[in-house]
Amino acid sequence: MIHTSNNIRVRYAETDRMDVVYHANYLVWFETARIKMLDQIGLPYREIENQGLFLPVLNISVEYKIPARFDDILDIHIFMTKKPRARIHFKYEVIRDTEILATGKSSHGFIDRERKCVRPPQKLMNLIEVAWSS
Amino acid sequence: MIHTSNNIRVRYAETDRMDVVYHANYLVWFETARIKMLDQIGLPYREIENQGLFLPVLNISVEYKIPARFDDILDIHIFMTKKPRARIHFKYEVIRDTEILATGKSSHGFIDRERKCVRPPQKLMNLIEVAWSS
Amino acid sequence: MIHTSNNIRVRYAETDRMDVVYHANYLVWFETARIKMLDQIGLPYREIENQGLFLPVLNISVEYKIPARFDDILDIHIFMTKKPRARIHFKYEVIRDTEILATGKSSHGFIDRERKCVRPPQKLMNLIEVAWSS
Amino acid sequence: MIHTSNNIRVRYAETDRMDVVYHANYLVWFETARIKMLDQIGLPYREIENQGLFLPVLNISVEYKIPARFDDILDIHIFMTKKPRARIHFKYEVIRDTEILATGKSSHGFIDRERKCVRPPQKLMNLIEVAWSS
Repeated sequence: MIHTSNNIRVRYAETDRMDVVYHANYLVWFETARIKMLDQIGLPYREIENQGLFLPVLNISVEYKIPARFDDILDIHIFMTKKPRARIHFKYEVIRDTEILATGKSSHGFIDRERKCVRPPQKLMNLIEVAWSS
Repeated sequence: MIHTSNNIRVRYAETDRMDVVYHANYLVWFETARIKMLDQIGLPYREIENQGLFLPVLNISVEYKIPARFDDILDIHIFMTKKPRARIHFKYEVIRDTEILATGKSSHGFIDRERKCVRPPQKLMNLIEVAWSS
Repeated sequence: MIHTSNNIRVRYAETDRMDVVYHANYLVWFETARIKMLDQIGLPYREIENQGLFLPVLNISVEYKIPARFDDILDIHIFMTKKPRARIHFKYEVIRDTEILATGKSSHGFIDRERKCVRPPQKLMNLIEVAWSS
Repeated sequence: MIHTSNNIRVRYAETDRMDVVYHANYLVWFETARIKMLDQIGLPYREIENQGLFLPVLNISVEYKIPARFDDILDIHIFMTKKPRARIHFKYEVIRDTEILATGKSSHGFIDRERKCVRPPQKLMNLIEVAWSS
């Protein structure tokens, strides 16, 4: 398993008139956690795209338990619990202090500039092996 | 079953550097379709909130098949396939011409101003009965 | 002068915890009005980008007078009051019924794929001439 | 003068198909800098709203010079160059390394829950005096 967490502070722009965070913003936070995990693994997502590969979201789901609010300090935890083959799967937890506010899952597949499905880059696979055992 | 569709045009703001619509925006489109269905049923969501009730998202999922792009004209179809009890469930299809670009599901529960779970308003239940048989 | 207006309905996602529309969303609405004006002139912005030209915002300003709210039906009026030379200038009014909620201005310049400044496409200039006198 | 800066990392969600940051997002970054300045002054904005006061944007403007891009690390500098009276004015600079990518200005006025204009809270005025001379 690989685990990373990203710390965020809820922006005013992310709230809605129900006085909680608008639900679509959790997907944006999940993305910041994926970016952070790839940094930590050693292959920043920016570099993946620079090589002409992209990692779009194939499916995503979120379970909302307790609303996040303006100015909350949150930890967005991300977990890779299975080594990727064609697809990469992530799980997420949005945590405020010791409370789990929301959980989520997403699956992703690599594509090239022509949007053709391709295998994950070997460099990434190697780095995941290293990160897995550490 | 109750079925409604809402027509939207993809905004530049909704795209990302992959030259497709950023995935979180589909959740916003789903919301516009829920609003439209409640209009059609005869109890606009605005009026529900005016009475001190709110209908937050409990969980949501999206399956992305074909990317939506800038300036696409899309139909966001929404389906209520089960009559609500405590929770209301919706299914979604994002359609461009005859292609299904994405599908989704969400569940919602009514809460009051103190965020206490409450049953759906009787007026809504009655209007759903009427819409169901029509 | 060329004048176009675009009708929008305020989305829940566009509100914030002050129970009004979050101020940055007005810029997105202005963009929908620019798109509509270019449609009306006869050269959709999508086609401009398809030819490798882009029209980024150089500067923008907004004056907020009365807050827009969830579910408001608004007309976003856009005015081209000077024929473009190197730069194109737009003015905006956000109107609810007969009230002006906000006004704005923006300036734009054409660039190519290498982000080099270029003159507006001649086709657009010709179409503006036609739209101006009509 | 009071000066604060807030460090942000550009999110994928903030980019658009022109492969730069969508222009409306700069307003969101300005907001994060205002929040940070109020923290530094000693009266977090959250506490101001908890007391039933709000600080909406009255007007805002941005000058875009060089585009910000995905994954950029940016410093959002904010300056209060005049002591507030009825209105509070801020200036902004978006900086990447040593380059100024954009500048901006905004004006704000305090309102209460009924949206009536009120004077800035005395506590804030006192704290600004302290921050000014330090």
